[in-house]
Formats: sequence, structure tokens, C-alpha cells
Amino acid sequence: MTASKRTAQATNESLHRIFTIAEAPDSTLGRIEQEMSHNLAGFLNNHIVASKNALTDIEQDFICPRIPEQPEFVSDHMHHLLDKLVAQSVHTASPSFIGHMTSALPSFILPLSKLMVGLNQNLVKVETSKAFTPLERQVLGMMHNLVYQEGGDFYQAWMHSAQHSLGAFCSGGTVANITALWVARNKLLKAQGNFNGISRSGLFSALQHYGYQGLAILVSERGHYSLKKSADILGLGQDSVIAIETDENNKINCQQLAKKCQQLAAQNIKVLAIVGVAGTTETGNVDPLDEMADIAEKYQCHFHVDAAWGGATLLSNKHRGLLAGIERADSVTIDAHKQMYVPMGAGVVLFKDPASVADIEHHAEYILRQGSKDLGSHTLEGSRPGMAMLVYASLHIISRPGYEMLINQAIEKAEYFADIINQHEDFELITEPELCLLTYRYVPKSVQTLLAHAGDEQQAELNMLLGKLTKFIQKRQREDGRSFVSRTRIKVGRYNDEKVIVFRVVLANPLTTKQNLRDILAEQCLLAQESENFLPQLLAAVKA
Amino acid sequence: MTASKRTAQATNESLHRIFTIAEAPDSTLGRIEQEMSHNLAGFLNNHIVASKNALTDIEQDFICPRIPEQPEFVSDHMHHLLDKLVAQSVHTASPSFIGHMTSALPSFILPLSKLMVGLNQNLVKVETSKAFTPLERQVLGMMHNLVYQEGGDFYQAWMHSAQHSLGAFCSGGTVANITALWVARNKLLKAQGNFNGISRSGLFSALQHYGYQGLAILVSERGHYSLKKSADILGLGQDSVIAIETDENNKINCQQLAKKCQQLAAQNIKVLAIVGVAGTTETGNVDPLDEMADIAEKYQCHFHVDAAWGGATLLSNKHRGLLAGIERADSVTIDAHKQMYVPMGAGVVLFKDPASVADIEHHAEYILRQGSKDLGSHTLEGSRPGMAMLVYASLHIISRPGYEMLINQAIEKAEYFADIINQHEDFELITEPELCLLTYRYVPKSVQTLLAHAGDEQQAELNMLLGKLTKFIQKRQREDGRSFVSRTRIKVGRYNDEKVIVFRVVLANPLTTKQNLRDILAEQCLLAQESENFLPQLLAAVKA
Repeated sequence: MTASKRTAQATNESLHRIFTIAEAPDSTLGRIEQEMSHNLAGFLNNHIVASKNALTDIEQDFICPRIPEQPEFVSDHMHHLLDKLVAQSVHTASPSFIGHMTSALPSFILPLSKLMVGLNQNLVKVETSKAFTPLERQVLGMMHNLVYQEGGDFYQAWMHSAQHSLGAFCSGGTVANITALWVARNKLLKAQGNFNGISRSGLFSALQHYGYQGLAILVSERGHYSLKKSADILGLGQDSVIAIETDENNKINCQQLAKKCQQLAAQNIKVLAIVGVAGTTETGNVDPLDEMADIAEKYQCHFHVDAAWGGATLLSNKHRGLLAGIERADSVTIDAHKQMYVPMGAGVVLFKDPASVADIEHHAEYILRQGSKDLGSHTLEGSRPGMAMLVYASLHIISRPGYEMLINQAIEKAEYFADIINQHEDFELITEPELCLLTYRYVPKSVQTLLAHAGDEQQAELNMLLGKLTKFIQKRQREDGRSFVSRTRIKVGRYNDEKVIVFRVVLANPLTTKQNLRDILAEQCLLAQESENFLPQLLAAVKA
Repeated sequence: MTASKRTAQATNESLHRIFTIAEAPDSTLGRIEQEMSHNLAGFLNNHIVASKNALTDIEQDFICPRIPEQPEFVSDHMHHLLDKLVAQSVHTASPSFIGHMTSALPSFILPLSKLMVGLNQNLVKVETSKAFTPLERQVLGMMHNLVYQEGGDFYQAWMHSAQHSLGAFCSGGTVANITALWVARNKLLKAQGNFNGISRSGLFSALQHYGYQGLAILVSERGHYSLKKSADILGLGQDSVIAIETDENNKINCQQLAKKCQQLAAQNIKVLAIVGVAGTTETGNVDPLDEMADIAEKYQCHFHVDAAWGGATLLSNKHRGLLAGIERADSVTIDAHKQMYVPMGAGVVLFKDPASVADIEHHAEYILRQGSKDLGSHTLEGSRPGMAMLVYASLHIISRPGYEMLINQAIEKAEYFADIINQHEDFELITEPELCLLTYRYVPKSVQTLLAHAGDEQQAELNMLLGKLTKFIQKRQREDGRSFVSRTRIKVGRYNDEKVIVFRVVLANPLTTKQNLRDILAEQCLLAQESENFLPQLLAAVKA
């Protein structure tokens, strides 16, 4: 045997081992796994280093564009990952990480995810998913029931029907929103007479056939950016998304909405969809869905509700009334990876009418044959993992009353945080919590007094400085790594609808304590003092 | 304390435990995890029961549309999942499951996936992913390098540039293809003069502005169904996808392609994209990419290569020549969850020009701000998990030569299978393997002889019967559960381009042995004998 042949054989054997021999429990990877299994929070606390490293520094560890020519031992590579990746990742499960919609996960999720990966099912078709297909259909049925509360006969008739679909699983809310608007578009511009429908003939022919000047999607100015993205992708153009003003509670102004519908009708622009927001991304407010449904009915257009965040609130009997009217929506987006405590990658879109998907149905020769129950005939995505299992298990293990408790507590916590912000003389609450989100900013008491009596010009100047201060504090707090709030810019009624930079928090992590919240405010007060420019300028303005 | 308050407190405490206390090693879930860690293949073999249960029977276990009002203990629920779900799932990692593009996974993938889930990063933005953002950009760089082989300066300039993107991670090949065509569409119909571009103004205005009668996407008749889906979603309509004839090797006929381009130009229909297929889903053949690139250049249209399957072949120095010309593509789709042995959910689209994504760029107030390095500004999806880590680790641990070995062996195995099919008197090889896919069918020798001399009518009748027999064998084999091949219908040159039902196999699983392949043929011979209608009818035809 030549040397090169021997090397090849050795590589071959070690490759075979990679596919057949498990990682030993005392290997690096085995130990990492045990540490995670034993105490995930401890693992994350130990391994994620709150470093001030700038992103540009971190990038230096990830600059080589060549695929390695030499294999690495698993254990060596794991040390590398712990050092360069895990240490510099974000502690999304931390109780004081309240800036985004990620949270701690229930502990059964980890081993269950491992089971999901190990089974490696592909839900595009029955042949590669078998029982996962009816399971996913059941989960869609449960979520549909949560929103629409139809009777047993309804679900018996449609839940497992090949030609119907109560909804679609997808990687997240963006794909869910695109899917909903795709369905709405194809239904509106369906085949008629000689016209084969937009699905086959495209938008240009469709608008010519139906004689519309254009299409529009109406949503409040707090709508998620994925709606503009959807309009772009679907060929409608971002300008077809018309932002309707919101009231002082960040809810769509229904008078303005109705007026716009009338205006557009006069211009022969067809409203493709009215989109209600159930939990705006920035402030967590819910649109008046029932009133919106009336308007959608009057103008005969698709009514979609983007409840990516707020949909989970339906699990709380106490608070589900906040979303009253959602049951009149033609389609609803809910992200299970948000307040349903499932890991990233679990969005859902639901359809009131199980036959809605007819206009987006797809077939092929080797899968998705006519009459098959393959889920892929009605999804935007093709191959997909079995995430539905994680939602299924969570619904069974936590159960509705368990979810209710989590959701009620999150809202109570937000109310508590709003209270302490209101009581603190150096903070200003910008938006009250309706769900578990709120926005606020640091404004020294003396500046608050000045602001209250300032003329327009001075007010704008103070808000500009306050914005810079908010940005400074938020960045520094993130860099220091103990806690994290996010920031955004929103229109504020009391400042003549000026756009103001604010801290934004989401209080969904069940492990966040009141003490965490008090600590975050205290830290922000200290950080404000470190601002060498903005705070002195503000205080100088007070003196002047 | 009242009874209801006590119950509430107890539930509250048990909920808190779910988020804080790990599953005990001796719990049901703990034991399942250990069994998987210790021996995944054994776990799958033990727990997936090859049952003949019809899907309609399985559905009976998944019919309740109500979200449970009572929580279940994790251990009880795990028994339920093992019994009703896992037992009735599909053994996609089995060496004799050669019908689809799923395979056994390297053993380091399982604990690594657990790490990914535990970290629960959201790659839409740096704030929730930190080091995962440069990591994903590096993986995109490596994949870009694999295809385009640009120099070090190129990657240094663009890999981590905020306004550029070498590609996008996505949940799978379908989203990758949609993204590629979205980019192509928006680039073609970009802003010009008074026109704000399709992204803002939509397709209707865009076609009016540019004065095209329509758009077309040209791809061989073996193109993946996701291309029609893409055309539907993007507003072009499925009919805009024009299928070009293939030659006897399932490769696009470039003369026909050029002719069609000319015809369309004469009709003022702009070719939006020519799509080359690098590994057709059904037969694994690769289009003549270099020749296609010439045509795309001549007609100045976007050249996309759908290498969802075949892209991994570039890792083999021996076989990468099969894809020569791919480096001239404007965009390329590759699925890492196919022949790169990463679990479901890892697609990639790559762009030759890092500035391509400018026309699909999105921003919002609270994330994806101008100039930020948030990956979400250039992806179709929003929130996404850190799958890039699994690709990164695989590229380092397996390395390019390791992948080469896996790919070369898969092709050799397909060649071996083709050989034994050819040598077996009762089988007919329909398509030769170019990559590791092939198609064939069971045709008793006497029927083969008859077919060879049959007139058109008799040939059609025999093929119809053979189709039914193939379907019968394939279904029975799947139901028996020991092994699985898929089936499809393809046009066969030697039968006057009649569409014929065939077995389709994909030999990517490194654990599939030659013995597995011989066993599959032997089982199919036995199953054929059990056909009470079709085989006797075929043999009667021979006698007549």
C-alpha cells in the first residue's frame, strides 16, 4: 500500500467514525452537552463573556474565506467555538436582557430539539415525515381553534383534508406575512373567464383583466417592516403599503382608515388587504381589530392580523379580550418562537377559510401529487424541519392555563416597571404597557420641568439632546453586557408628534425579577452621568 | 390562603421549575437524551417502528383541536411522543432509505444543534447574534469562494461590508431560489429617471416604464417546482417559466434555449433569468452551465444556477469539473442540508456581485438601520436561527478533502448500483448516474425483449402496465418499512419521449453499503411476484 493510499484509508475510517461513533461523554463536546443538560443558565452565564469587543474586532476571528484543507478534531474545534463564538454571542436568555423578543426557554426544549434534529424529518411531504404531518396539521388546528374557536365538526372536516389547510408553519413571522398576502393576492386576482389567474398569468395581466389602477395594503404606521418587504416580493411595490396614522395609544385611527378606503375606491385602486397589528413591535399595542373588520367587510377586502407578537395573548382568558375581533380576520400570523417560548424558527399563519390555500397550491411529479396530504403543496417554503413537534409538546406540557400564567405575569411585570419609571423623578414613561412592552427614556427632573413649558423650538432641541443621551446610555449598557434594553424612534403625541428616541423593553422572560428592573434603571442613571456631552448640555439648557 | 390561590401558587412554582430546573438524567427525557447521545442509530432503530399503519390511522392520534387545559408531566408526554410520533416517523438516516435527499448525520451535529438551540440567537440583527453575524458572513464567504474562487482582496473588501452581501442564509433551497429571482427582478427593473424602481412602485409600473410585453424565466423541463412557485410569488406568473427541452441525458438543449431567447426578444418579452440546474431533483444531471452562461451573456440576462443538490460536488476536486461554468452564474443556490450533511433548514444563496442585494435592501427604525451590519437587511426571512454555526463546524471538522471523499464515494456507489441493475436481467436502468442519483424500474426479461420490438401502441400499453407495477412495488416496499426508494415520472428518449414511472434513488448516505443495494433489488423482485394484477398481465402480453 502506498503512503497516499494509507492516508486515504485512514481519512476514510475517521470519516466513517464521524457518522457512526457517538461523542464520548468525557470528550469536550460530551462535557459541554452535560453542562448544558445539567444547568443551561449556568452554562450560558459561564461561557458568554460580556466583553466590550467591537464587532470589527470580532470580525478578525472570522475573516478566512477558504474552506479548510485539514480536518480538525471535534474537541479542538469545540474549544475554538467556545472561545471565539459562544463567548462572544448574546445571552438572549438572561433575565436582564429585556430589549428583544427572545427569552429563556423551558428546559424540556433542549433535549426535545435534539430529538427533532436526530429524527431529521422533512415536512415538505409525508414520505419523509409520516406522523409529523398529522401532528403539524393538529398543531395548526389547535392554533386555528385558539383564534377562530370553530366547532368540533369544522376541525373534523378540514384538519386532515388533503385539499385544505388551516394554516402553514413557516420559519417566522415574515414568511407568515408574505404567505398571508400571497394568498390574499391570488384569491383577489383569481382565474375568471379567459383569464387564468395571477398565479399562472402574473400581476400585469391580472390588473389588466380586472381593470384596477393598482392595489393597496393598509396598515398603521406602526406596522412591521416585513409588510413592505412582502409588498416588494409580491410585485406590488413598497409604495402600495399605505401607512395610516395612529392615535396617542399607537392604535390605527379607524376614521382615517375608512377615509383612505373611500379615497382609493374613488381612484379605482383596490384595497388588497387591511392589516391589523396585534402587538406592535415597538410598543406592543393592539389595533381596534373589530372596527377594522367592519371596514374590511364594507370594502370587501382581505383582513389580515399580524399577531406575530400578541397572538400568544389569546392563551390568557384574562387578556384575550384585548384582541377581540381577531376571529374575523381572514388570516393571522403568530410566532411561536416569541411568547410561546419555542426556539427560533417557528412561525405560523392561519386561515379562517380552510380552502384559502387553493390559489397557491403547487404540485410536482415526484412529490405533492394531487390528492396527497403533503404539507408542501400549500407552503411558501419547501423542505422544512419538524418544529411543529416543539409547539405540540409545549402546548401539552405547559397547557393553556400555564401559558395564561406566563402571559399575565409578563403584563403585570410591565405594569410594575411602568410604575417605577413613573415614580422615578429622572425617567419619563413614553408608552404605557398594554401587552408586556413599554418605552421610556432618561430625562433628569429639571429637564422634564423645562420641557413641559418649552416652546416648539426649544422642545425640539431638548428632544434632540435627549435622543443623543438615550442612544449613549443604550449603547454603553449593551457594551457593558450586564443588561440590555433596545432603542427605537417613535412619534410622541405630547411632543406634537415629534419622533423621539426611546428605550424599548419586552418583559416576556419569566425569569426577569423586579430587582432586575430596578437594577436596570439604576445602571442607566449611572451611565447618564458618564455622558460627557449630552447631559451637561441639557443641564446647561436648564440653567439658561 | 384560599384553595384556588394555593393551586395558582403551585402551578406558578411548577412553571418556574420548567424554566430553571434541568431534566434529571434519570427522567424519561434524560434517558432518551442519553440513549441518543450514546448511539443515535441504535435509538432510531429501536424507536422507529416500521409499521404498515396507513396515514388515516395515524391521523386518529392527532385529531383533537383543543389546546389542553391540564398540563402534562414531561415524562408522560415523552412516552406519548415516543409511542405516537417517533415510532411512526420516518427513519431518514437508515442506510436502506435511499429514496430522498436526507441522510445520516455526523455525530457531532446533535450536541452542536443543542448548543445552537440553547444559545437561541436571532441572526436578523447583531444585537441578538453578535459573533454569529461575522460567523455567518464568513460561511457565506467560504461558500462564495467554493463557487467563484475570487482572490483574497475580494473577500477582504466585501465579506464584512455592511452594504454588501456575498449571499444569504435561508431555511432552504426554495427560499434561496425565490431570493435569487427577487434580486434578479429588482435589478432588471430598477429605478431609472422618474421611475422609482419595482421595489417601490411594483411590477405593473415597472413593465410600463421599461416597455416590456412581459418577463420570462427559462429553465429545462427538469427544473425544480420551486421555480414556478417563485414566479407565482414574485408576480410574474407560473406561465412565465418556460420549460426548455432536455436531451437524452436530461440536460437542457442549448440550441432550443438560444432559439427561445431569440423568439422572446422578437416578441419584446424580456428574459429575466436563465436558470441552470446543477443536479436535477429527479435524475441528478447537470446542465451545460458554461454554454448557458454564453447565452445569458449574449441576451444580457441574469444567470442563476440551482445547485441545491449538486453544489456540494464543488467540494470534490475530482468531480467539480461537472459544474464548470457555475462560476459565471450571477447567483447560485446550494442546500447545506442535502449533501453537506447538516440537518434540515440550511439553504444558501450566493451572489457573484456583492452589491446585488442593494435592490432588495430593507430598513426599519429599531433594527437594520442604515449602515448596520444586521444580516436581516438583505434576507427574505426575518428572525432566523444560527444554523450557520452547523455549516461552519462541519466545514472545519470534515474539511474539504473529507467532503470530497464523501462525495466521490456516493458517486461510486451510484455507479455500482447502476452496474448491478444493468447486470440483473429483470431490471432496466432508466437514467445513468452523473452525480449519485439514478432511476430504474423492474421489467422482467421477457417483457424487455417484447418492449424492444413492440410497435408504438403496444409499447405504450406495456409502459402503462409497468408503471402500475413500479407504483405497486414502491408503495409496498415503503409500507414494509425495511427500505425505501422514491418514484417519479420522467420522459424517456428510448420510448419516444413517453413519460414513464420509475424508481428514483439518491445514494448520499455514507452508511449505505453495497449489500443494502443488493437487498433492495432482491426485495423488489419478491414484491413484484406479489402483484396480483400487473405482473400477470405483463407476462400474458408476452405470451400473446
